[in-house]
Amino acid sequence: MDRNSPIGVFDSGIGGLTVAREIMRQMPKERIIYFGDTARLPYGSKSQDTVLRYSRQIIRFLMTKEVKAIVIACNTASAYALETVERELDIPIIGVIRAGARTAVHSTRNGKIGVIGTEGTISSGIYTDVMRQMRPDIEVTVKACPLFVPLVEEGLLHDTVTDEIASRYLSVLKGRFIDTLVLGCTHYPLIRSTLGRIMGDEVTLVNPAYETAIELKALLEEKDLACQGAEEDGGNEKYQFYVSDLAEKFTAFATSILPNEVKETRKIHVEGY
Amino acid sequence: MDRNSPIGVFDSGIGGLTVAREIMRQMPKERIIYFGDTARLPYGSKSQDTVLRYSRQIIRFLMTKEVKAIVIACNTASAYALETVERELDIPIIGVIRAGARTAVHSTRNGKIGVIGTEGTISSGIYTDVMRQMRPDIEVTVKACPLFVPLVEEGLLHDTVTDEIASRYLSVLKGRFIDTLVLGCTHYPLIRSTLGRIMGDEVTLVNPAYETAIELKALLEEKDLACQGAEEDGGNEKYQFYVSDLAEKFTAFATSILPNEVKETRKIHVEGY
Repeated sequence: MDRNSPIGVFDSGIGGLTVAREIMRQMPKERIIYFGDTARLPYGSKSQDTVLRYSRQIIRFLMTKEVKAIVIACNTASAYALETVERELDIPIIGVIRAGARTAVHSTRNGKIGVIGTEGTISSGIYTDVMRQMRPDIEVTVKACPLFVPLVEEGLLHDTVTDEIASRYLSVLKGRFIDTLVLGCTHYPLIRSTLGRIMGDEVTLVNPAYETAIELKALLEEKDLACQGAEEDGGNEKYQFYVSDLAEKFTAFATSILPNEVKETRKIHVEGY
Repeated sequence: MDRNSPIGVFDSGIGGLTVAREIMRQMPKERIIYFGDTARLPYGSKSQDTVLRYSRQIIRFLMTKEVKAIVIACNTASAYALETVERELDIPIIGVIRAGARTAVHSTRNGKIGVIGTEGTISSGIYTDVMRQMRPDIEVTVKACPLFVPLVEEGLLHDTVTDEIASRYLSVLKGRFIDTLVLGCTHYPLIRSTLGRIMGDEVTLVNPAYETAIELKALLEEKDLACQGAEEDGGNEKYQFYVSDLAEKFTAFATSILPNEVKETRKIHVEGY
């Protein structure tokens, strides 16, 4: 393994770009290979078997790019696949869930934490399991919010319909008097202001994308894998983007949320890996 | 080809069951092999290349079941794949679009037709093309409604949020004074009452699922392929269901909308075909 090798980051689609963005900000020397499974998204409504199979194919693709570490930038894939694939790999792999869970456990004052996510992430029970391992007396209330991703993808980030749906989803969490809410899906930080207004100032919102980049940085330093060279410019080859469908649409979206223009996204047949 | 062979019906997931249901009602002697691509749904937001590749895999699977005809019970796959795959097959294959388009053209009195569907179906322009071939002076207004499928799948069939979203989507169609609206996605008949209330009594709603079953019946009779035997009971082997993921969830949903209980759904690896 080479310190100058890239980091592999994958997601079911575009949401994981929020994790890639944090890695770019916090570790500007690192190279990144990003894969978004746009031909098979979303993962949140699919079974563990299927999400595990898809994750293994993507990891085999990333290994052909000689990545030094992998970040599963998708809560559902982290929930369903991380524990299995980390036993199969000889490079470090982390998901977004552990970092988010740890921050929530450290942040809560009253021991009551809420978690929102896709049906897959929520029904896996993984956030509750991980947080209870860290602190057994924690009280966790979970709520699947399947309409948030389509609302975000429709661009209704500041809209009365999103307010109404969010009020319904979050009412059970407000009723439990949580003081910390984990945004357990990479799309949710994009409606953070709506979620924050409904939950109120006294509730801390935890964004696992941000926390995952911090955890990755510490992990690379611990394993002596952090890039030591000079910071390169943000050119095309430093950050490479691959998808399984709709490369041009991905390029446009990625350019809109990343600090540098994305010049090219390559489409691959991921099911062949 | 054998008259007693089954009919193959496929969709990206559950929506095509509305087409299967119409075939069961209108042709009670026929056997059906249904496939729902639940591991890769939805198709509506994916590219033509990808939807064509998925459709070919599914057709190869259905051919192993010795089907005598195939119905593409998905508007997006009909839009993107039908024209290509019908040249590759030596059995009859029909999609939901032509039957829906024909009924709309016959139904309109003022020549102004609206079409709603997924982003894939709408951006393909296929409804407009097909209707203009039938009647060149027709005026077609189209509108993609990407939130309708998630709203239906969340169960908000009669809900103020669905009313609000539908009002926004349909306002452009009302402004064009259409008198006929094609429900160009198999989920949409499930919110037919909402759509009808917003459009008003003077607008005819066309459900391509219903029209497709009529077209299939005529086609089988024309080709001397209609089942001649006695009507069997609705037992398990008469109707067989296959999916690429979440077989149990599919069984529960299918039982809720089909006339007979679905006892079993089998999961297959469709990408291997």
